[in-house]
Amino acid sequence: MRGAIIYGPRDIRFEERPDPAITEPTDAIVRTVATCVCGSDLWRYRGIEEVRNPTPIGHEYVGVVEAVGDEVSTVNPGQFVVGGFLTSDNTCPICKVGAHANCQRVTGYDGCQAELIRVQNADGTLLATPEHPSDDVVPSILSLSDVMCTGWHAAVCADVRPGSTVVVVGDGAVGLSGVLAASQLGAERVIAMSRHADRQALARDFGATDIVAERGDEGVAQVKELTNGIGADAGLECVGTHDSVVQALRSVRPGAMVGWVGVPHVTDLPQAHMFWKNVGLRGGPAHVRAYLPDLLKRVWDGRIEPGRVFDLTLPLDQVAEAYAAMDQRRSIKTLLRP
Amino acid sequence: MRGAIIYGPRDIRFEERPDPAITEPTDAIVRTVATCVCGSDLWRYRGIEEVRNPTPIGHEYVGVVEAVGDEVSTVNPGQFVVGGFLTSDNTCPICKVGAHANCQRVTGYDGCQAELIRVQNADGTLLATPEHPSDDVVPSILSLSDVMCTGWHAAVCADVRPGSTVVVVGDGAVGLSGVLAASQLGAERVIAMSRHADRQALARDFGATDIVAERGDEGVAQVKELTNGIGADAGLECVGTHDSVVQALRSVRPGAMVGWVGVPHVTDLPQAHMFWKNVGLRGGPAHVRAYLPDLLKRVWDGRIEPGRVFDLTLPLDQVAEAYAAMDQRRSIKTLLRP
Repeated sequence: MRGAIIYGPRDIRFEERPDPAITEPTDAIVRTVATCVCGSDLWRYRGIEEVRNPTPIGHEYVGVVEAVGDEVSTVNPGQFVVGGFLTSDNTCPICKVGAHANCQRVTGYDGCQAELIRVQNADGTLLATPEHPSDDVVPSILSLSDVMCTGWHAAVCADVRPGSTVVVVGDGAVGLSGVLAASQLGAERVIAMSRHADRQALARDFGATDIVAERGDEGVAQVKELTNGIGADAGLECVGTHDSVVQALRSVRPGAMVGWVGVPHVTDLPQAHMFWKNVGLRGGPAHVRAYLPDLLKRVWDGRIEPGRVFDLTLPLDQVAEAYAAMDQRRSIKTLLRP
Repeated sequence: MRGAIIYGPRDIRFEERPDPAITEPTDAIVRTVATCVCGSDLWRYRGIEEVRNPTPIGHEYVGVVEAVGDEVSTVNPGQFVVGGFLTSDNTCPICKVGAHANCQRVTGYDGCQAELIRVQNADGTLLATPEHPSDDVVPSILSLSDVMCTGWHAAVCADVRPGSTVVVVGDGAVGLSGVLAASQLGAERVIAMSRHADRQALARDFGATDIVAERGDEGVAQVKELTNGIGADAGLECVGTHDSVVQALRSVRPGAMVGWVGVPHVTDLPQAHMFWKNVGLRGGPAHVRAYLPDLLKRVWDGRIEPGRVFDLTLPLDQVAEAYAAMDQRRSIKTLLRP
């Protein structure tokens, strides 16, 4: 089979690789129907994270089960499935409390931007759709593999509830998903911080009630003007830089929570904006399997269309171009089909 | 009148000072019935925080209203009252969301280890008891001025709920109050980290089900052994040092919250123990006025006796000895009576 391999900064190649095989009785093999590039993949693409050896890459996918190990009981060959960007067994004490991203048997993948994928912990990771989805629903199901669940996680960690005023920092695919999540969780007001017209438009479609294009002090001032002078009840940090974390912490009111899900490239946390303001910070990798049943139902019922974050679709063998398009911000998020 | 003044490290003097006066129509003057020394006062006493000029000190008190300004309507001269360590107006948009410690008109005090106290924002700060309390209840009411509300705030920030397993880092008066708070909030298991026999005994009386005397790696290992191998559902950080923050973050399970209330003497937050473990951190100065009505009722009804954290009572004019006793750990918390 063929799959993407990252060799170094801006060097993604689509190459022949050995077919993955079932090596544990809890494994499944999935034939990819769609996969995509994650904002977090770009850290290595841009050379911010080092690539020491050529490495298969990608961690988002939907597909059809090709084969399962002897102990797999909840999915069968032929079913259409989605799985999270980390695998989880869904049975360990940590999964039992809903923190699946930190499962005691958590694993990643050997590259999902590929034609075939080995999924470990298949029972605790994969969820089958009621039937094979129509083509236009595939992007929304794919989004549940990471980006939509990550936006949802930000909103849950930020304690968004009916009536909340929410500020979302970051207008990438995760930030836009966060806007949708906040709206679905009943937020009365969702302020999207965005400087790009196309992203602002999608944010509004996803439920944003206000757009703030400014950043820094001016951005904080704008948010305060919209929130009775005190800041938002909840903040979603969907970037991961020091500036964006500070932006989120400063844009919320005293006593608020910030949910942070952008992979942090932060050396120290700015506690000056936390303790004395009673602002809390909670987040990390999303507990996909915890959210998946609910979110898959929302997609299946047509209540949400998170797949709209994909604004470019390419054949999988053009994966290098997908990275370039996202790196150069020509695409919010690029979907790949074998 | 007379009051305590800090001149520098280990230099507390009890001196004649001008009687406080009503200068705003929202002020009240309270004649002190009891006051005390706070763990946070010791930062200056120990020279860790600088004292630039001689400064009146103390921020916890109960007393009898002596006089009120023209606009004060909820308390009257002659009433027995308790107020929090910060004043709040209880009407601004931040108070409306329950974050009273960050009130838009927040003030401190000009030293409460004194015979008379000027209380700004009297209506939003003071709560009168149904009648004058008997002498043995005074310490418990005094504890609501700071320490018990601070322990309560830690438990609320850590999201303690019925059935939770909670670990409390710190066996000072705040930590012990945190044990009591967690227990009152329905925690099924409360693990107190304490190395002192007398504090362990009080922790057990306050509802601790387990004691862990170890710290660092060994302490984490002990807590995990008590918690299904994964750590506690909630952590209460009641010290404020880098080590204690790390101890709390490492002693909880993935997905948990740590409530931090020890005034932080932390240069940077150890996010390595947060993001990838999905552990959140929330806290700050306690919203006393938000908690006061409920907690005063619990004290008045005899359901809790948080005043047991006071293990030494001295006349107010021996305030210097009160500091020395707490500094040398001869006393958990010292109560002072004029």
